[in-house]
Amino acid sequence: MGILERLNAGEVVIGDGGFVFALEKRGYVKAGPWTPEAASEHPEAVRQLHREFLRAGANVMQTFTFYASDDKLENRGNKLTFTGAQINEAACDLAREVANEGDALVAGGVCQTPSYLSCKSEKEVKAILKKQLDVFMKKNVDFLIAEYFEHVEEAVWAVEVLKETGKPVAASMCIGPEGDMHGVSPAECAVRLVKAGAQIVGVNCHFDPLTCVQAVKMMKEGVEKAGLKAHYMVQPLAYHTPDCSCQGFIDLPEFPFGLEPRILSRWDMHKYAREAYNAGIRFIGGCCGFEPYHIRAVAEELAPDRGFLPAASEKHGNWGAGLEMHTKPWVRARARRDYWENLKPASGRPLCPSMSAPDSWGVTKGHKDLMQQKEATSQGQLKTLFDRSKSN
Amino acid sequence: MGILERLNAGEVVIGDGGFVFALEKRGYVKAGPWTPEAASEHPEAVRQLHREFLRAGANVMQTFTFYASDDKLENRGNKLTFTGAQINEAACDLAREVANEGDALVAGGVCQTPSYLSCKSEKEVKAILKKQLDVFMKKNVDFLIAEYFEHVEEAVWAVEVLKETGKPVAASMCIGPEGDMHGVSPAECAVRLVKAGAQIVGVNCHFDPLTCVQAVKMMKEGVEKAGLKAHYMVQPLAYHTPDCSCQGFIDLPEFPFGLEPRILSRWDMHKYAREAYNAGIRFIGGCCGFEPYHIRAVAEELAPDRGFLPAASEKHGNWGAGLEMHTKPWVRARARRDYWENLKPASGRPLCPSMSAPDSWGVTKGHKDLMQQKEATSQGQLKTLFDRSKSN
Amino acid sequence: MGILERLNAGEVVIGDGGFVFALEKRGYVKAGPWTPEAASEHPEAVRQLHREFLRAGANVMQTFTFYASDDKLENRGNKLTFTGAQINEAACDLAREVANEGDALVAGGVCQTPSYLSCKSEKEVKAILKKQLDVFMKKNVDFLIAEYFEHVEEAVWAVEVLKETGKPVAASMCIGPEGDMHGVSPAECAVRLVKAGAQIVGVNCHFDPLTCVQAVKMMKEGVEKAGLKAHYMVQPLAYHTPDCSCQGFIDLPEFPFGLEPRILSRWDMHKYAREAYNAGIRFIGGCCGFEPYHIRAVAEELAPDRGFLPAASEKHGNWGAGLEMHTKPWVRARARRDYWENLKPASGRPLCPSMSAPDSWGVTKGHKDLMQQKEATSQGQLKTLFDRSKSN
Amino acid sequence: MGILERLNAGEVVIGDGGFVFALEKRGYVKAGPWTPEAASEHPEAVRQLHREFLRAGANVMQTFTFYASDDKLENRGNKLTFTGAQINEAACDLAREVANEGDALVAGGVCQTPSYLSCKSEKEVKAILKKQLDVFMKKNVDFLIAEYFEHVEEAVWAVEVLKETGKPVAASMCIGPEGDMHGVSPAECAVRLVKAGAQIVGVNCHFDPLTCVQAVKMMKEGVEKAGLKAHYMVQPLAYHTPDCSCQGFIDLPEFPFGLEPRILSRWDMHKYAREAYNAGIRFIGGCCGFEPYHIRAVAEELAPDRGFLPAASEKHGNWGAGLEMHTKPWVRARARRDYWENLKPASGRPLCPSMSAPDSWGVTKGHKDLMQQKEATSQGQLKTLFDRSKSN
Repeated sequence: MGILERLNAGEVVIGDGGFVFALEKRGYVKAGPWTPEAASEHPEAVRQLHREFLRAGANVMQTFTFYASDDKLENRGNKLTFTGAQINEAACDLAREVANEGDALVAGGVCQTPSYLSCKSEKEVKAILKKQLDVFMKKNVDFLIAEYFEHVEEAVWAVEVLKETGKPVAASMCIGPEGDMHGVSPAECAVRLVKAGAQIVGVNCHFDPLTCVQAVKMMKEGVEKAGLKAHYMVQPLAYHTPDCSCQGFIDLPEFPFGLEPRILSRWDMHKYAREAYNAGIRFIGGCCGFEPYHIRAVAEELAPDRGFLPAASEKHGNWGAGLEMHTKPWVRARARRDYWENLKPASGRPLCPSMSAPDSWGVTKGHKDLMQQKEATSQGQLKTLFDRSKSN
Repeated sequence: MGILERLNAGEVVIGDGGFVFALEKRGYVKAGPWTPEAASEHPEAVRQLHREFLRAGANVMQTFTFYASDDKLENRGNKLTFTGAQINEAACDLAREVANEGDALVAGGVCQTPSYLSCKSEKEVKAILKKQLDVFMKKNVDFLIAEYFEHVEEAVWAVEVLKETGKPVAASMCIGPEGDMHGVSPAECAVRLVKAGAQIVGVNCHFDPLTCVQAVKMMKEGVEKAGLKAHYMVQPLAYHTPDCSCQGFIDLPEFPFGLEPRILSRWDMHKYAREAYNAGIRFIGGCCGFEPYHIRAVAEELAPDRGFLPAASEKHGNWGAGLEMHTKPWVRARARRDYWENLKPASGRPLCPSMSAPDSWGVTKGHKDLMQQKEATSQGQLKTLFDRSKSN
Repeated sequence: MGILERLNAGEVVIGDGGFVFALEKRGYVKAGPWTPEAASEHPEAVRQLHREFLRAGANVMQTFTFYASDDKLENRGNKLTFTGAQINEAACDLAREVANEGDALVAGGVCQTPSYLSCKSEKEVKAILKKQLDVFMKKNVDFLIAEYFEHVEEAVWAVEVLKETGKPVAASMCIGPEGDMHGVSPAECAVRLVKAGAQIVGVNCHFDPLTCVQAVKMMKEGVEKAGLKAHYMVQPLAYHTPDCSCQGFIDLPEFPFGLEPRILSRWDMHKYAREAYNAGIRFIGGCCGFEPYHIRAVAEELAPDRGFLPAASEKHGNWGAGLEMHTKPWVRARARRDYWENLKPASGRPLCPSMSAPDSWGVTKGHKDLMQQKEATSQGQLKTLFDRSKSN
Repeated sequence: MGILERLNAGEVVIGDGGFVFALEKRGYVKAGPWTPEAASEHPEAVRQLHREFLRAGANVMQTFTFYASDDKLENRGNKLTFTGAQINEAACDLAREVANEGDALVAGGVCQTPSYLSCKSEKEVKAILKKQLDVFMKKNVDFLIAEYFEHVEEAVWAVEVLKETGKPVAASMCIGPEGDMHGVSPAECAVRLVKAGAQIVGVNCHFDPLTCVQAVKMMKEGVEKAGLKAHYMVQPLAYHTPDCSCQGFIDLPEFPFGLEPRILSRWDMHKYAREAYNAGIRFIGGCCGFEPYHIRAVAEELAPDRGFLPAASEKHGNWGAGLEMHTKPWVRARARRDYWENLKPASGRPLCPSMSAPDSWGVTKGHKDLMQQKEATSQGQLKTLFDRSKSN
């Protein structure tokens, strides 16, 4: 069954996790450029990560083609042994090879381009995207994803290009509840994307799971209010980002090399999966920071709804059940759901704060101080404002 | 000069701090009832606190008549040796005695009544307030403050009663940016209060200083948009409350006996005073948690604007200057402004979190967990929403 | 009954709290010099603080003569209207006046001198101390306290001087479990002080309550091991100081103007009082940071052992009982012991850490970083080492 | 060159990271049993992890034979398709295959046995270890590691067994500065191990890097004091564990499913590598929590000392240099060493504490509370005690 058949049938489709961050930690992607030449250079590493996500329950093998448009590959100043076409082709082959080992679809992925940011024309931007698309069609991927767009205009262009193929198209922006870089709301972004032809809309990256679910809920409300129809997807960060400004985790002082204390636990993922499901989202995956065990936790939370566990659960006890045989009674006592659901895990870093002030906050130090204070003091009140704004 | 003459002349009027919390710590007020019978029972303690605030720079001696309406005094089940009238009279005498020792005005204060909460009629509520007012007129206070109202309707009634005296009337609600308990916005609350006759409007208690300043700014914008005129006042908590819901610090798990880690430093007060001043507020004081040194910090921050320091500054070096003679070089190095402005003080409590989930969040545990997560994850995004809401 | 009669009879004697910090916040003492000229300049403020501690349960009114030796008063560069003798006399009068209002003794207090630190001779140091002592004898205080000594040698000299009067002598050092500034252990310090004639020994200031209790336990073990006899006292900070080095809170970056987040709650004081009592300490009071309600909490915790509550408990419900009538059910739910005993109070400061690195840690930044890491990482292991060291 | 030749020549030998934790996250090891049947079941996953550590700079491919003694494999109740011998053989083959791809040695590893814990005889324990050893000899590993022993007695037995082969033997205990489970100090443990024939001694697992380095330093001092000679190794956790008791991270409430906030950043690893090097340790690797990028950071820190970078550094800019081309100036500003060295990364978890109380602390709640307080309050003082204990 294709992606739309699955979603139309009410199935939950589980996405994979973020390749660039996972492979950066494994030594195959360079932080900064974040380009995916590893598909050609070290296929065994990319294949293995695909397999781990498949085992964890992913139904989608997204081609490792993030930032693989020609302008991006060049822009990042890499001396590459492989051409853009070669990298994109290798990525398709790897995704297909592993997808065939299980119940997964291959999704060809494009994302935002330097061409758009440097104000190239619609025609030029579309041409750049078309080059990746040609590879995806040659390799006959199952569907297409336009993801990680900060500007709804470029996302719409991408959808328009992808639509020409006749393949199902998913469109995912890297925005939060505040909307895109021009302040276009999630609701309005979603409406434009659906009108451009996307059958699935949602958000990915930049914010933590519950914030992303919130943004997708706003999209869904917008689409429904406009009398349109769509499926919804969400692929958030695996980092807690309560302190982000509108550009997401990029602006946090910890990005990208000090994010460790923010990594979500598997139990955080259970909450995320349930929230996403309850919000009516049925394509549920992950982005930067997601490791295979995070996707497994999503699949395990939704196992009652889907009727089965992922393969990797053969190596995972339910809610810590693997601890039941531990020799120490106090460790055995952790083999239960409410223990892990209620744990407030410590950072082990008594000299560090619990939140940071985003770097984008103001130019002068004095101003930044005030902003920090204000941010820190006004969040409670803002919650209600925000809840209210939704009901209007 | 009276309060209005001072404000009309552009003077900064500094308020005093919160008596009930300060006297609770000193052993003269009972937490829970919070009633001010100490004015009669232990006048020396009340007098001394007035003096300390006067020395710290306060220009207003607010009568210690909080919760001193007859219905409140009875409601709290105290076995009181003194009548309500006696307590109110004693409070007026103490305020006047100390005001005469310096440059301060006496303000007679009333606040919300149990009668309103138990749905008594407008007439009954006004009658209760009138009894306190009779004492204030007999004792000839300089002006009147209706403060700590959660419901704008009751606040308007109070202003209407106070206005009958011909004395200047200030009206202060214990609300944040979200407005009163019925969701009436700060802007709308302020407009109603000014229309009812208040010459000064603002907020007190329930939230930390920058949140309160924020709420008063919303009031000011509302009043100006309505083509009205008023002076503005702010008398916030001396506790950091970033995690409050709309009812303020009452709902924090730490209220009222575990608030210590939230107490503002004197340097936090400098920021507060400057922010309040920059927002155009000219009656700047404090409420629960304010100790005399907090008011002194307000007066010291605004000394360049006012042209003089408070009396208590004879015992306080500028920005830590008192450390200049310390024997240890690293302690001497703290005798400078930027050291204290930038210090991020540690709690010394590694087993405690930096924020709490308000008790009012949700009925079921599962829901509470989700709300906590959402609160914690969405604050950054909300900030922009909020900023935007103001500019609309 | 005198101090020794009480202690010999097994009574708990409750000390008062720290005057210099409390009066600094009230506007009468200057941070830095910390000298007590307020006894002459503003007797009403000092008298009121004595009264509040008396009401809170204190059985000892310590004369407000900290840093009132002539060399200190001069050294701090104050332009004083009053002579050292006048200040010491005024302090004695105030302490006696309030002591007579209840069941309290007057203790004349001396502390470490600049003369010792500038290497003056034993004779000179003793002469300086003798001047204060002459006032105490003239005013006929009930007993004498030599407190806040960092060097056991000077503490011994002080005891020798005080012993000449025939009054009971208590000796208290501002040290923690690591001992004095020369590394002399608490056990050895205590032995020397007892041998010099002190009938009561202990520690005050510089560290938080449980650390101070720990140090006094080491003193007690040392004294008992030496076959000597003494009574024990403890008067700690009301600040959490898990991150102190051997010189105590002076070296914390927050000293003295950013300590607010570290202030102990009344419930922390219950734990302290019980621990001190269980350790066999019977003179239990407080030092810097202690406000009257902290002393009241000590008295309330020990009320079952002593058989009575302090006067100020008329304004304090048992374990939050004052909240029983609150209108909100979740606030009423806080009116119980286990709620407050288990509360982990939040700081409301998400941008601040929970611990600081003492300023005294190393000269270079790189070294300081490593020390911070080491400190933060090794505390757990050290605990056992420490426990073991005691049992050896 | 063999392991001893390298160490004798003064080379730095870099170890690999922890397989059980890394493969648990990848879906191939079950938390609880922690057994390594994946070597037979999913060789591609184990091979890939070996490769990543090799690329990251590891010179040692440790056979994935942790908990692969027959008694452990049976004890954990796994239904295994493969025999212990098969699993051990597969692990040797994988390690050798990848070692041959670069400059690495194969180390056959044994660890503590359930037989010892269930009080089997020396003969029985040695027999169990011998079975693994037979495989290692058949597969001709380069050297042997006896690691993760809590009891020095069992560790000595293991060394005695391993020594019979004539291969170089390294012995590593999972202890901290407090020593083994019977309180035998690190110094004494090391002496016994060296006397039993280990040429390399050290610690692994259970504690964070700087704590482990501390423990190895104590071992080194002990060995030198005894007039013996050895090389030193350290393979710590990649988790911050300042709050551990003597049994290490097992007793933390977060073990093993909530440790995320404690994960070390790559910059923490730079500090660790330098500290270990400065302590004279030359076999420097990792254990649970170490991902390939952590080992790469160790190799990068020591690159100036070793003269070369690891292969994976082709995908890693020096101290964040990969950010130099970022479009946002404030992100570009992070491309420098001191930024990352000084960053105090936030947890993004304002509702969580910075430290936990180990589960092993006391039976009753009241006692646990007191222990928490004591722990939290006494760490500063303990540091000096500890420093002092070393110099004695």
